[in-house]
Amino acid sequence: MTTPFHGIIGYTITPFSPCGEQLDLPALGQSIERLIESGVHSIAPLGSTGEGAYLSDTEWQQVARHSLECIDKRVPSIVSVSDLTTAGAVRRARYAQQHGADAVMVLPCAYWKLSEAEIIQHYRSIGAAIDLPIMLYNNPATSGTDMPVELILRIVGEVDNVTMVKESTGDIQRMHKLQVLGEGQVPFYNGCNPLALEAFVAGASGWCTAAANLIPELNLSLYQAVAAGDLQQARALFYRQLPLLDFILKGGLPATIKAGLALTGLPVGEPRRPVFGLDDSAKATLRSLLEELHGLHDVA
Amino acid sequence: MTTPFHGIIGYTITPFSPCGEQLDLPALGQSIERLIESGVHSIAPLGSTGEGAYLSDTEWQQVARHSLECIDKRVPSIVSVSDLTTAGAVRRARYAQQHGADAVMVLPCAYWKLSEAEIIQHYRSIGAAIDLPIMLYNNPATSGTDMPVELILRIVGEVDNVTMVKESTGDIQRMHKLQVLGEGQVPFYNGCNPLALEAFVAGASGWCTAAANLIPELNLSLYQAVAAGDLQQARALFYRQLPLLDFILKGGLPATIKAGLALTGLPVGEPRRPVFGLDDSAKATLRSLLEELHGLHDVA
Amino acid sequence: MTTPFHGIIGYTITPFSPCGEQLDLPALGQSIERLIESGVHSIAPLGSTGEGAYLSDTEWQQVARHSLECIDKRVPSIVSVSDLTTAGAVRRARYAQQHGADAVMVLPCAYWKLSEAEIIQHYRSIGAAIDLPIMLYNNPATSGTDMPVELILRIVGEVDNVTMVKESTGDIQRMHKLQVLGEGQVPFYNGCNPLALEAFVAGASGWCTAAANLIPELNLSLYQAVAAGDLQQARALFYRQLPLLDFILKGGLPATIKAGLALTGLPVGEPRRPVFGLDDSAKATLRSLLEELHGLHDVA
Amino acid sequence: MTTPFHGIIGYTITPFSPCGEQLDLPALGQSIERLIESGVHSIAPLGSTGEGAYLSDTEWQQVARHSLECIDKRVPSIVSVSDLTTAGAVRRARYAQQHGADAVMVLPCAYWKLSEAEIIQHYRSIGAAIDLPIMLYNNPATSGTDMPVELILRIVGEVDNVTMVKESTGDIQRMHKLQVLGEGQVPFYNGCNPLALEAFVAGASGWCTAAANLIPELNLSLYQAVAAGDLQQARALFYRQLPLLDFILKGGLPATIKAGLALTGLPVGEPRRPVFGLDDSAKATLRSLLEELHGLHDVA
Repeated sequence: MTTPFHGIIGYTITPFSPCGEQLDLPALGQSIERLIESGVHSIAPLGSTGEGAYLSDTEWQQVARHSLECIDKRVPSIVSVSDLTTAGAVRRARYAQQHGADAVMVLPCAYWKLSEAEIIQHYRSIGAAIDLPIMLYNNPATSGTDMPVELILRIVGEVDNVTMVKESTGDIQRMHKLQVLGEGQVPFYNGCNPLALEAFVAGASGWCTAAANLIPELNLSLYQAVAAGDLQQARALFYRQLPLLDFILKGGLPATIKAGLALTGLPVGEPRRPVFGLDDSAKATLRSLLEELHGLHDVA
Repeated sequence: MTTPFHGIIGYTITPFSPCGEQLDLPALGQSIERLIESGVHSIAPLGSTGEGAYLSDTEWQQVARHSLECIDKRVPSIVSVSDLTTAGAVRRARYAQQHGADAVMVLPCAYWKLSEAEIIQHYRSIGAAIDLPIMLYNNPATSGTDMPVELILRIVGEVDNVTMVKESTGDIQRMHKLQVLGEGQVPFYNGCNPLALEAFVAGASGWCTAAANLIPELNLSLYQAVAAGDLQQARALFYRQLPLLDFILKGGLPATIKAGLALTGLPVGEPRRPVFGLDDSAKATLRSLLEELHGLHDVA
Repeated sequence: MTTPFHGIIGYTITPFSPCGEQLDLPALGQSIERLIESGVHSIAPLGSTGEGAYLSDTEWQQVARHSLECIDKRVPSIVSVSDLTTAGAVRRARYAQQHGADAVMVLPCAYWKLSEAEIIQHYRSIGAAIDLPIMLYNNPATSGTDMPVELILRIVGEVDNVTMVKESTGDIQRMHKLQVLGEGQVPFYNGCNPLALEAFVAGASGWCTAAANLIPELNLSLYQAVAAGDLQQARALFYRQLPLLDFILKGGLPATIKAGLALTGLPVGEPRRPVFGLDDSAKATLRSLLEELHGLHDVA
Repeated sequence: MTTPFHGIIGYTITPFSPCGEQLDLPALGQSIERLIESGVHSIAPLGSTGEGAYLSDTEWQQVARHSLECIDKRVPSIVSVSDLTTAGAVRRARYAQQHGADAVMVLPCAYWKLSEAEIIQHYRSIGAAIDLPIMLYNNPATSGTDMPVELILRIVGEVDNVTMVKESTGDIQRMHKLQVLGEGQVPFYNGCNPLALEAFVAGASGWCTAAANLIPELNLSLYQAVAAGDLQQARALFYRQLPLLDFILKGGLPATIKAGLALTGLPVGEPRRPVFGLDDSAKATLRSLLEELHGLHDVA
């Protein structure tokens, strides 16, 4: 299978007004512009970082459409269309397709735990509703559903347009298994920031990361070093950015990336409640982490 | 603290049309009528069993209003108003109050894991928005958020109208801790069906159960046996209903209770997708479990 | 199956000299005398509390023989013969039989995780080597091996002299399952102190407890209250002793029971290193917990 | 800190007679000879693979002495001296030193869970008893004790001769943390076979592996490829040997390595009971995995 998605896939935040209630679409546009200028290989709106789960249907559509308009096909786009109900995910997938997305991403969210048959049918229904490629997304920490590699590959085999896999369990052995059982034919992507180096080493096609809002050069350089087979350089670049990657994982992506954008001159509000923004102490830590990474080109 | 809630708190399902897309409010009314006639002490619409998480806002309001109208104050009512966003939960809590609920129940749902401070603020915001008593609900298996007893009691202490606790982790020691650390002053309720006997023995004020849609006499008799201090009888009644309680826990409450209602003459549709209804084999098992429990009065 | 074991099964500690290196057999005799005088229904040497795992083979034999001589058939005895190797467990089981034990207890210890077939064969080999009844003991927290109820009942079915089950996972639903799947024919015993009340309520034949070294009257009274079907009294007695039961579970049985015996006039040394004895602060807590429980007869 | 240990550290098995009861020291000597001839950088007797936990004290000493005599300082040796008691571990550590070991390895085994203070004191006591460097070994799956990186580094800081760390949790992020918090000054070793590639990429000094009994050339080539910074080659070599590495992890190291040695002409008996040897079907799988890896030099 061929796919236009590789390298650094930058995740967008969803900016809110200071009071937290309104969308701030102009700020969304600016954040996308930054990502494109930084050189990321593609852009993913409305993922976990984009607080897609916290938006009303109307808001979700506004953000999807505006994001796609701003991206304007300059890089490939992949829109997260996850919803607790199959009908809702189908609706969002169709909307994304109608407005020009190049692919959609689907995380099987769960209130009631899903059986394998239910998960397969969920992907089948979405797959039948659109013509776009689908990136299956496994992230039990947020979705409450853990898909073992065998199930993932079964879905890839049974649903034609599920052609890519994003793995975020944090267990590198899942990627080995995707590589081995998928016989190198199923492109997989890493969604766990602190595994960035190992995932590329294990054969991941890309790194899905919100860190690209803050340190795109470091993200891109790591990818390039691995692609060039330069292990020394890749390791140095990885350990250089690891403290920030750990920080954004622990602090929560929407809170930390939004704070980081504000620190670098683009105010985008705070996460929607009940999620808090960073407190002052965490902001200070983030500031010093970012300052330390400023002189990127010294690394080599 | 005094509370009108005790004994058997019956949970309602949310009936859908056969195609699964429309609400079936008349069937909802009939299911509520059944519960009241069976003698349950109070009724809880829109909980996990009621698929509250799978409804649109409009649907949620229709179900809440219709349920409260049908109950019509004949027994106390407690409406689940959980939502992923604080603003959404506040909106639902206000709606429930306006339409005559006696209390609301709040489960802190999570996509991004919540800190203790975020959970406390969530309850504080909802508490400030209404005058009704709130039942705090802990169920990490569905919500993704586990509140230790210490946190629960802190919230009870800090938010005036959080006056009741529903515990569904399945760990009886949590109830011991609620009893001991709460000094017997914080009424707690059991939400884990297979712990029904032990929870009452440990001091639970009530049993929140969807099983009351199917075997209300057995549920009520167990409560009465414990209240009468009749341990032999309580144990016999518990083991009599345990296979059914285990079955509905493992099969998922909406799927099994809906199938059971259909088997007893009240068709209410299936759960909303991606959740499946019971397959034929599971329906057959459920049928024989129900048949076995038919001759209730033999137990004593 | 009939068994002489029921009610309160008191576990012995293994006293060491102050320097920690030598056995103190006279103190062992005194601790057993205390247990018998207190009225426990049977005595279990060399269990987890008895630090059986930390003794050399020679020491283990000395303790086993001396314990059985002191008990002198005044109450039934059950000796823990667990060993990492099957050959070692067989050797200990034979030794216990030769020296007059009424039964043996077997926990399948693991360094390398055991398969179900390996566990079954382990019990089969021990069962074939002796004529005594065997109590199968499940305690994954110490043994690293968790036996599901289905496996336990399979072993009971396949190995003739495995006739009793001790469950210590802390999950009351395991006991429900033993009761239901064992059709009330497999006597089971509770090894998790804070579940004492619920286990009896669920149908446990006995409570295996080291607490009987410190508060035997409370342990016995709880058993009698349940046997008499007096739920109010049972609950009151349970909550009365629960803080101590929680304390000894959290502090570790050898450390807390040994400290408690010293506080009540019988110095028995400390646990063998690397396990520490209680520090001064924990000893003070234990002292006040014991003082509070002194006036037992007020409870009724 | 400098250490002679790096690269491939080969673990020995402990051969038994066919009946399983006696040590087979001549076969032990042959297996060590094979390892040395294969070019491993150092040898580790009596680890998990060597069934050290299943030997009597006398047997343990026989194996330790014979192994050290066979190695005869041709490569550095590191003897596992773990024991459930501190006194036992000290005794074994002294014995290893007296008989010429270059270092010892210590896993803090637990029956009763150990506190951090107890673990630290355990290492302190062993450290004080010998002059050799100690490799701290973290493997919660077998030992029941999980040491977080912060605790590990605290022990390294407080006990002078604890100078190396072996990590076997299977979580690559632990190694990142060792690298970052240890500031690159604490050599760490990988004990989880399927993480071989990632561990070297993350900076591990060596790979502790029993696989070197079966596929030493592949193990060594992987190390060399990473050392040469040749990522393509390292990845190819890793995926080539991964199926075997997965197989021996899942089948248990003593059982699979012993079966593999028998398949390659060196019968060494089976693991000591209750652990089983491989059954015929698993042996057939192992045979075909080994046959597939025979033509090593094709890889490049």
